Amino acid sequence: MKIALAQINVIIGDFEGNSSTIIKKIEEAKLNGIDLIVFPELSVCGYPPQDFLEFDDFIQKSYLAVESIAKHCNGIAAIVGSPTKNPNIEGKNLYNSACFLTDGKVQAYAHKALLPNYDIFDEYRYFEPSKSFSCITFKGKKIALTICEDIWDIDDDPLYTLSPMKELLRENPDFVINISASPFSYAHLENREKVVSYWAKKGNLPVFYVNYWGAQTELIFDGNSLVSNTNGEIVAKGKAFEEDLIVIDTDNLPSPLTNYKEEKVARIYQALVCGIKDYFQKMGFKKALLGLSGGIDSALTATLAVDALGAENVTGILLPSKFSSDHSVSDAEQLAINLGMSYTTIPIEPIFQSFEKALEPLFKGLPFNVAEENLQSRIRGTLLMAHSNKFNGILLNTSNKSEAAVGYGTLYGDMNGGLAVLGDVYKTEVYELSNYINRDIERIPKNSIQKAPSAELRPGQKDSDSLPDYDILDKILYQYIEQRKGPNDIIAMGFDENLVKRILRMVNKVEFKRKQTAPILRISIKAFGHGRRMPIVGKYLD
Amino acid sequence: MKIALAQINVIIGDFEGNSSTIIKKIEEAKLNGIDLIVFPELSVCGYPPQDFLEFDDFIQKSYLAVESIAKHCNGIAAIVGSPTKNPNIEGKNLYNSACFLTDGKVQAYAHKALLPNYDIFDEYRYFEPSKSFSCITFKGKKIALTICEDIWDIDDDPLYTLSPMKELLRENPDFVINISASPFSYAHLENREKVVSYWAKKGNLPVFYVNYWGAQTELIFDGNSLVSNTNGEIVAKGKAFEEDLIVIDTDNLPSPLTNYKEEKVARIYQALVCGIKDYFQKMGFKKALLGLSGGIDSALTATLAVDALGAENVTGILLPSKFSSDHSVSDAEQLAINLGMSYTTIPIEPIFQSFEKALEPLFKGLPFNVAEENLQSRIRGTLLMAHSNKFNGILLNTSNKSEAAVGYGTLYGDMNGGLAVLGDVYKTEVYELSNYINRDIERIPKNSIQKAPSAELRPGQKDSDSLPDYDILDKILYQYIEQRKGPNDIIAMGFDENLVKRILRMVNKVEFKRKQTAPILRISIKAFGHGRRMPIVGKYLD
Repeated sequence: MKIALAQINVIIGDFEGNSSTIIKKIEEAKLNGIDLIVFPELSVCGYPPQDFLEFDDFIQKSYLAVESIAKHCNGIAAIVGSPTKNPNIEGKNLYNSACFLTDGKVQAYAHKALLPNYDIFDEYRYFEPSKSFSCITFKGKKIALTICEDIWDIDDDPLYTLSPMKELLRENPDFVINISASPFSYAHLENREKVVSYWAKKGNLPVFYVNYWGAQTELIFDGNSLVSNTNGEIVAKGKAFEEDLIVIDTDNLPSPLTNYKEEKVARIYQALVCGIKDYFQKMGFKKALLGLSGGIDSALTATLAVDALGAENVTGILLPSKFSSDHSVSDAEQLAINLGMSYTTIPIEPIFQSFEKALEPLFKGLPFNVAEENLQSRIRGTLLMAHSNKFNGILLNTSNKSEAAVGYGTLYGDMNGGLAVLGDVYKTEVYELSNYINRDIERIPKNSIQKAPSAELRPGQKDSDSLPDYDILDKILYQYIEQRKGPNDIIAMGFDENLVKRILRMVNKVEFKRKQTAPILRISIKAFGHGRRMPIVGKYLD
Repeated sequence: MKIALAQINVIIGDFEGNSSTIIKKIEEAKLNGIDLIVFPELSVCGYPPQDFLEFDDFIQKSYLAVESIAKHCNGIAAIVGSPTKNPNIEGKNLYNSACFLTDGKVQAYAHKALLPNYDIFDEYRYFEPSKSFSCITFKGKKIALTICEDIWDIDDDPLYTLSPMKELLRENPDFVINISASPFSYAHLENREKVVSYWAKKGNLPVFYVNYWGAQTELIFDGNSLVSNTNGEIVAKGKAFEEDLIVIDTDNLPSPLTNYKEEKVARIYQALVCGIKDYFQKMGFKKALLGLSGGIDSALTATLAVDALGAENVTGILLPSKFSSDHSVSDAEQLAINLGMSYTTIPIEPIFQSFEKALEPLFKGLPFNVAEENLQSRIRGTLLMAHSNKFNGILLNTSNKSEAAVGYGTLYGDMNGGLAVLGDVYKTEVYELSNYINRDIERIPKNSIQKAPSAELRPGQKDSDSLPDYDILDKILYQYIEQRKGPNDIIAMGFDENLVKRILRMVNKVEFKRKQTAPILRISIKAFGHGRRMPIVGKYLD
């Protein structure tokens, strides 16, 4: 049997566009003698549809889309993902379903049993888990049809009390098909290989795993669809961050792949470029702008934006103050020249003075403090937004994850932006990415990489005045954020007790800032945003 | 048996503080001959603990808190809520439990079976649902001990496939105890009465229902704990938005209550005052500030803030521009005088001119448009934040729900603030509340209530230039937001087709703005924020 895995990119709620993408692939597959073409999870409506699933209208449109796609399935079978109605009185009203289409209609459904409800996932919010399982027979072959998480219960400490794969393997299927919506993290390819291999070996059968590519705001889908042989070896992999169609003859699987994996830093680079590109594409915007401080964060963000959108679509704005060092301006200018992007300079001092004058009756006699520091940042944020409004560009936020963690950023100032490009990238990873980008030629000025980080909001300010070295800070943050270790566990790893407590307290204290942050492109296993939900007001660790 | 329902307020993660609150109540109860004192859901750690539940350390601290409380339970029994570990290998690691304490230790647990995972609730993210049920016997009485949602499956279309109450009633308990964390909405008291009465009648037994009072950022807990007799009549009710202790002799229930309910507008007023007060209390802030435009939204917000924090702790800032009408300033001043709060005036025109000058090289020859409109709003936002930073006050956001819905607000401008007081209050409800507040004397100047709403960002601007009348707009928004009706359903109700489509498109298009909004005090059945999760990028309705 000739199976095609269609690694597509869809728009949430764009039933017409998504159906037309799917139908086009089906028609092409017919011409190429494909027997069965497989699309990702919830492919007719897009993933994650979130609360649109609570609208009857949205569900009806999903049914109509599946019907219209089914009409094209003659001489071919297709599997598409769609929400469907739970006919039982008890339980939630919907299933997350794989629809098996052939002979012009839906022949069978497989409903998802394991509904991820952790990190960025909220599937139990909408769907009833399936509790009955049976394989689908097509052209004499028995297919174990599963949806994403259904194959992920391979641990000794399973999250679920039911194992759909164990149930399905009892029927001795010929192969497994899994339709997924599996967002990128820099470690996730290995996780996927692990589950795909696990069930291939367990069932002694090939596993076909199809994923999306593209971005849905914060979530980046890397494609990387997989096929495993009966030994659990990967024999085919979809392209990373690109459309792809993997065609496999089940009677004649290819040889195992070798050396097909990129290193972590390359994956993150590609993910961020994809994330920027697809956000602009789907929002219907071409132009980006950002403030260039001469520092490494804005330099890296600008480079990623240029690689995603083209240098002609990215504008840098230099916003020097009296506290800006000379190299701030020259490093930023050098970056713009290196990247071939346009830039402009607006000194903020006259505006700052007009604010000082306006506030003088109130602030008279009070010392320069965080109010004036933030004021500079907010003047910059306001100038950038004026440019954004006037020239219809999206402002890119340049804050990194280390800063976002400890609240080292000004709300309505440098925290402004439509998309936070580096919000899930620790400062130490910012350096790694910058060096990776400079691996052949110096695109990011060396000076931006080498100088000591500073917000330059008061004379001689350095990040290290109030923060430990980033290689220590990031390790503590990683244990707290990604690994959810409490203070005692982290201290037991050898970090200074007072430092750990101070850092963790800083992280907890600024939930109110992160509540108002731009969407953050997710590249790690635990990003700020929808996947990390902490109380704004709490006393833990105080 | 003498039962006390302890309607308390706790701080999330403040194990020491919460335990001490609970222990104090237990000691008082002992002195008053109480047999059993009951505290709300997850009372040792606070509700909702969110992702703190993923920290082992947090769970250990919960266990220690329960133990330390149990030590005080001699000659008395207590029921407290706490996360506990699921001893089974399969399933999630935690239960949401009610701990029955007496003779110095935990004698029994009841684990929550129905885990709400809709709207603002995410309980399936953390907890495994219980599947076994048995009553607890104390002093010869059989108690059906349940947790919040466990008693909420009373409909013909149940959300769950299991009914813990049906299971427990088989054991013929003497009464039901339900420990809850049930956030306020203006309609929720009636819902709670319905479920409490339903099971009282069904089981022919009294039901004791205890709830929190206080606010956890967006979520406001109204107290209103309930006791029902065997006929389903409410015989006792805790105070609204206040600490309370209901003491009931199970052998001698009081007579049914009559006329104990406030009207909707009074409930909302009390909820908002409680929400502001407790947010400041728990954040450790005393002082609030806000921009006073002379309009009704800022006038109402100021009044609520004064009622919550005292006039001496609220500062109004008038920020007139050349587009401000004369009455903007005089109405705002009159308000401040009526409320007895301090105010100050900072004209923004000189700052606006300094921005215009700085931007002239870029904007030369381009017409005044949204860039300049937003610029005024952002100058105001920046001045307010400078005041907030300098004088350590929290800026209150004054946007209403209608504006937030259609995106009628400027990011980093009038959308600034630490807490959005009216973000769940439609404009028509803003009028209702203002008239309610003025029922005895004119606190909010009549002129602010009567004049046509305007952002005053360009000459002669009125909200009605681009929006329909608020009584029509709010009805459409209510159907879309609260009722999750699609466009066809709303049009079928008699609203103009083009208008409905235009409004719904506006709502969808500005998810990116609402992503960055301040936390919104929730008073309705569907507030913007954590309880409403929509894709930022989507094409539905386009």
